[in-house]
Amino acid sequence: MDTIKINPEFDGQFCKTTSLLDPEEFRRNGHMMVDFLADYFHNIEKYPVRSQVEPGYLERLLPDSAPIQPEPIEKILKDVRSDIFPGLTHWQSPNFFAYFPCSSSTAGILGEMLSAGLNVVGFSWIASPAATELESIVMDWLGKLINLPKTYLFSGGGGGVMQGTTCEVMLCTIVAARDKMLEKFGRENIDKLVVYASDQTHFSFQKAVKISGIKPENFRAIPTTKATEFSLNPESLRRAIQEDKKAGLIPLFLCTSIGTTSTTAVDPLKPLCEIAEEYGIWVHVDAAYAGSACICPEFQHFLDGVEHANSFSFNAHKWLFTTLDCCCLWLKDPSSLTKALSTNPEVLRNDATDSEQVVDYKDWQITLSRRFRSLKLWLVLKSYGVANLRNFIRSHIEMAKHFEELVAMDERFEIMAPRNFSLVCFRVSLLALEKKFNFVDETQVNEFNAKLLESIISSGNVYMTHTVVEGVYMIRFAVGAPLTDYPHIDMAWNVVRNHATMMLNA
Amino acid sequence: MDTIKINPEFDGQFCKTTSLLDPEEFRRNGHMMVDFLADYFHNIEKYPVRSQVEPGYLERLLPDSAPIQPEPIEKILKDVRSDIFPGLTHWQSPNFFAYFPCSSSTAGILGEMLSAGLNVVGFSWIASPAATELESIVMDWLGKLINLPKTYLFSGGGGGVMQGTTCEVMLCTIVAARDKMLEKFGRENIDKLVVYASDQTHFSFQKAVKISGIKPENFRAIPTTKATEFSLNPESLRRAIQEDKKAGLIPLFLCTSIGTTSTTAVDPLKPLCEIAEEYGIWVHVDAAYAGSACICPEFQHFLDGVEHANSFSFNAHKWLFTTLDCCCLWLKDPSSLTKALSTNPEVLRNDATDSEQVVDYKDWQITLSRRFRSLKLWLVLKSYGVANLRNFIRSHIEMAKHFEELVAMDERFEIMAPRNFSLVCFRVSLLALEKKFNFVDETQVNEFNAKLLESIISSGNVYMTHTVVEGVYMIRFAVGAPLTDYPHIDMAWNVVRNHATMMLNA
Repeated sequence: MDTIKINPEFDGQFCKTTSLLDPEEFRRNGHMMVDFLADYFHNIEKYPVRSQVEPGYLERLLPDSAPIQPEPIEKILKDVRSDIFPGLTHWQSPNFFAYFPCSSSTAGILGEMLSAGLNVVGFSWIASPAATELESIVMDWLGKLINLPKTYLFSGGGGGVMQGTTCEVMLCTIVAARDKMLEKFGRENIDKLVVYASDQTHFSFQKAVKISGIKPENFRAIPTTKATEFSLNPESLRRAIQEDKKAGLIPLFLCTSIGTTSTTAVDPLKPLCEIAEEYGIWVHVDAAYAGSACICPEFQHFLDGVEHANSFSFNAHKWLFTTLDCCCLWLKDPSSLTKALSTNPEVLRNDATDSEQVVDYKDWQITLSRRFRSLKLWLVLKSYGVANLRNFIRSHIEMAKHFEELVAMDERFEIMAPRNFSLVCFRVSLLALEKKFNFVDETQVNEFNAKLLESIISSGNVYMTHTVVEGVYMIRFAVGAPLTDYPHIDMAWNVVRNHATMMLNA
Repeated sequence: MDTIKINPEFDGQFCKTTSLLDPEEFRRNGHMMVDFLADYFHNIEKYPVRSQVEPGYLERLLPDSAPIQPEPIEKILKDVRSDIFPGLTHWQSPNFFAYFPCSSSTAGILGEMLSAGLNVVGFSWIASPAATELESIVMDWLGKLINLPKTYLFSGGGGGVMQGTTCEVMLCTIVAARDKMLEKFGRENIDKLVVYASDQTHFSFQKAVKISGIKPENFRAIPTTKATEFSLNPESLRRAIQEDKKAGLIPLFLCTSIGTTSTTAVDPLKPLCEIAEEYGIWVHVDAAYAGSACICPEFQHFLDGVEHANSFSFNAHKWLFTTLDCCCLWLKDPSSLTKALSTNPEVLRNDATDSEQVVDYKDWQITLSRRFRSLKLWLVLKSYGVANLRNFIRSHIEMAKHFEELVAMDERFEIMAPRNFSLVCFRVSLLALEKKFNFVDETQVNEFNAKLLESIISSGNVYMTHTVVEGVYMIRFAVGAPLTDYPHIDMAWNVVRNHATMMLNA
């Protein structure tokens, strides 16, 4: 710690002054942090996947105000281990199968380190040209990789931007569509705007609609059924639109899903877009989780019809290994977005902007300041190469298939929805529970499966979560963590099976 | 690279398969990245502060699609140096005095590394309890540190949340106020809502208002003048409100500023809040940049009156050394926020949430997913301690004072606004230009100063930016980068002086 020196008395007590960013102190402490994390990855399976703490645990461990004097990094890392670790749910554990993955990778973490180290703020091109230009280039790379129509790429007259999360993307595109529509119909009609989605669309969409000032009553969650595998039926959409038109309302926006949160259902883009086009409705395609799979040619057919939509997004941080956060949005007509979100204050005026030759990404999103996110996606693409990335995705899907087969072979269980990607939805079946406990209604089956899941999770060995679709409780098993391999799948299945056996024999 | 092995043919060509997160590969590559960044900090002054590239420079350097085969980290870091570095504007350079600082530190970067390495998603308490609990604790720590009234702290019935940027915070608080007001007056009155700010309020506020669906015409930017040092005059606010009331409109929201972007003007909170209270208006206090100074007792008087406001925020990433992004928001009544932003979807249901004993931060912000940001603020507070952090802030302010004195001693220059914190606004004076070139109007003076600034920046030695207030062009010199020391201030002044001398003698 050669950069720490004793300073004159201050604030009534002696204190050491460190430099904020001494390169050698950074080097020393940085190496310690790298080793700390490498050790964490080595040991990650030793921790319960889902944290076992009780609410308020940390307040009992930490002091109630910030320390006056500095603490060395050694002490801080010790505190991370003793105080923070017990409260972590380990999303990077190979035994994490909950929610959807939020997968990191060596390259993703390195990209985040680089971004944090450079710490530039790329709101305008001039504020750090590389931040803007690399983002535009990488968005074109990624668009090509998932075979997005050329019209979505900068090289085809469209363009892409990296935001934090799908929630932001939804809000931005709704606002773009809203302002375009109100320009035509007059602002006083904001309460007549109607937005559409299926009842399986991510709940963030409804929240984004609410934030945008659109009347909450004008949000239509169109019911789906098992008959269409929980995808949005185009005819249901048409009926809903026609009713709203009849009532004098203005259909505005449709959010479609490629891979819904509950069961990875896929909406049929082509017929949905055709209907939307008839009525002049903006279509956004949300492929938050499943979009990453489309780097493999065999999954790109799920995007058929996207050429008729207006905007498309997915989260590279979910299943393309960039670490949180990195949501990629493409638009065929970026000007509709920038028209709604542009600002041109004097404090940011500069020749490059005035020349209109550059992208200023602040006008493509809600926030002004923005991190250099493209570095991590660039590092991921370069470090692994497309071929490996496809391998990773395919191996996750193969492992999910393997799990699905294990479930299917056990007659006490049933698969509850088609496995389109790497998510398996299953439960102990009504039949098995009828045989054993004379259960006859779904509520009892739901309760049994909910208890089964809690029993599985509480073991600490594995984490999965649940959903309820059409009143049916299902356990969700999502593969995608960066360290997961076949033994983890087998172990997870054994945990499920053993807990089920225990409960069935109770 | 012992983790790379040759795999069977794939995609028509041989490719190597790396593991996504092999601990030893991470260790090796992580150490390289740390050394790379440490070397960058050593050499940071060798690069032009503001990038000198032309628009489109990077497209000419990079291939037009992602690589199929992996590239080793050595090659990637070489590319960063050769392709990315020329396009960087170096925000962490000690010669960066532009905009407001976006300061990092060793501890801030380490915190970001740790957050990226753990890569947990703390949307709900259960999703990683430590992420939620550390955030609540650190928000209370920081609130106490800047002497926020207890009513803003969890320990006093209020509470705080870390979001990305002030833009998000503004949008959230507007939406909270909007929904509360519309609940009272009925949704159909959304077009009657009016929001207030001064003409010096950050432009993001107007953008947030627009996004929230409030009628853009109902945004009041109340003019300020030099007479009140560009702060918002309470009587002007009252007049504006009264006019709107007379017109049948509904006053909703006032955004006040502690340290405006142009000149760090400080709005008088107490009288403004008193007026707002009379009319039932939500008051947000935006101290984006200057809030950090309030960790020093001698600056806390700027917050007098905040006890009468509803919400308060500042960016720890600006001047509290956390790296981008980290915006801290406190509210006296968090329930008004969560009422507007809560969602409770089945896929996230869990016992802890149902028990209502925990904070679920997804309901405190726009987005669902959220990074573990509190780690970096916690690391900053622990690594430096309060005493050092005050030292850093004070030293930046002392350096700004020093620059101000240098400007003041040169009779050709004039200081254009009070230096409340670490920003100095100055220009070559009308008098000097009158004497030299017979300039008689402000336009000529503005043009001269704009040219002077461009000449200064183009040297590459130093970066500062400008503003225009009341039609007067000023150069802004903001101190706060983590490596800045007195020699950098003196050098910056020499650059300014020399370029001015050159232009005055031309």
